[in-house]
Amino acid sequence: MSTLQVDYPPTERTRVKRSHERGRYDRESVHAILDAGLMCHVGYVLDGQPYVTPTAYWREGEHVYWHGSSASRMLRHLKERPRVCFTVALMDGLVLARSGFHSSVNYRSVMAFGLAEVIADPAAKLAALEAMMERIVPGRWPSLKPPTVQELKATTVVSLQLEEVVAKVRSGPPIDEPEDYALDVWAGVVPTTIALGRPESDPDLKPGIAVPENLSRIRIG
Amino acid sequence: MSTLQVDYPPTERTRVKRSHERGRYDRESVHAILDAGLMCHVGYVLDGQPYVTPTAYWREGEHVYWHGSSASRMLRHLKERPRVCFTVALMDGLVLARSGFHSSVNYRSVMAFGLAEVIADPAAKLAALEAMMERIVPGRWPSLKPPTVQELKATTVVSLQLEEVVAKVRSGPPIDEPEDYALDVWAGVVPTTIALGRPESDPDLKPGIAVPENLSRIRIG
Repeated sequence: MSTLQVDYPPTERTRVKRSHERGRYDRESVHAILDAGLMCHVGYVLDGQPYVTPTAYWREGEHVYWHGSSASRMLRHLKERPRVCFTVALMDGLVLARSGFHSSVNYRSVMAFGLAEVIADPAAKLAALEAMMERIVPGRWPSLKPPTVQELKATTVVSLQLEEVVAKVRSGPPIDEPEDYALDVWAGVVPTTIALGRPESDPDLKPGIAVPENLSRIRIG
Repeated sequence: MSTLQVDYPPTERTRVKRSHERGRYDRESVHAILDAGLMCHVGYVLDGQPYVTPTAYWREGEHVYWHGSSASRMLRHLKERPRVCFTVALMDGLVLARSGFHSSVNYRSVMAFGLAEVIADPAAKLAALEAMMERIVPGRWPSLKPPTVQELKATTVVSLQLEEVVAKVRSGPPIDEPEDYALDVWAGVVPTTIALGRPESDPDLKPGIAVPENLSRIRIG
């Protein structure tokens, strides 16, 4: 992992000041984390009040995308091209140090700032929704009923350009005070991952339909 | 799960309007989700810009807590008792419908609004940090080196009262358009959980220290 490459020049908002060795400003690091995650948290401000909405997202090139009902508060607001903070955090483990103070969490995160843009063009919207499904279950889209004009209207797709963005990564064992390594305390990491369970067929599934092979291609985390 | 009990009266911000059947305003539902999660996303506003910071949290009674370096931007800002949005989202599964439109995610989430309060009293702060470790690894705290006065000073603990709060839950199979159940498309749920891996001892662990039994008591998700 390169810590020297800078594709996204740090700003006052994205420069990692404490634990600055955790910061990454290169495209490869940012894209890798974004492509591993599935849920983001989008922050926006309405009448001075912050809102944080969890939602699924995907990345294409230098944009991240999310979507939702055109009737939702968040998405109605996002039509006004507001400033947002887009955050993805993947927990990789519990870091159990010899003191509470140095105990921590291993994680990979991305934080991006910018103006949210609604995708208005129906063809672009349709392509974006296909890309979303391709992210979740590669190869599933062609098997689905295509969206109707009404469904497309009822769906708002929003994008944010990756421009003012930073990745942060903490990995590896705890780092304790030098004198604490002599303590009789176990220390180490308990790894955490997102596990996929066995697919549960819809109880109302039409008889004779097998679980598709492409479900084995889902990757999260 | 009770959908009738209302312990946290809904406000303009917390009332679930679309898919209102997913909303829960009872203490039992809210506490259960908060006690299952480990990472929250805290939203706050600085100079009109929203920030969303992922961090570990814990709950005690009718408060949630999080902590961090007293030097961090978020925690310096939170000393000014600002309005925050505290969000926890647990992904429970990919809901694969017969159309993209009805595809979804199963999840449990909590969103809480209010004024963040810094815990100033050192004894209360110490008790809060013990409660945090008890949440992560029950029984681990007494084995650790106790925090020094300096470490306590360097740590800011913040709390938010559970007052304006809502839980949202989506569970179960996809809900497709009635006519779509006849399609030759597999539909169902791919469950997702947070899996704990085998503990990895610190390479610099003092020889002869065994992995403690209490690690088996960690519960996330």
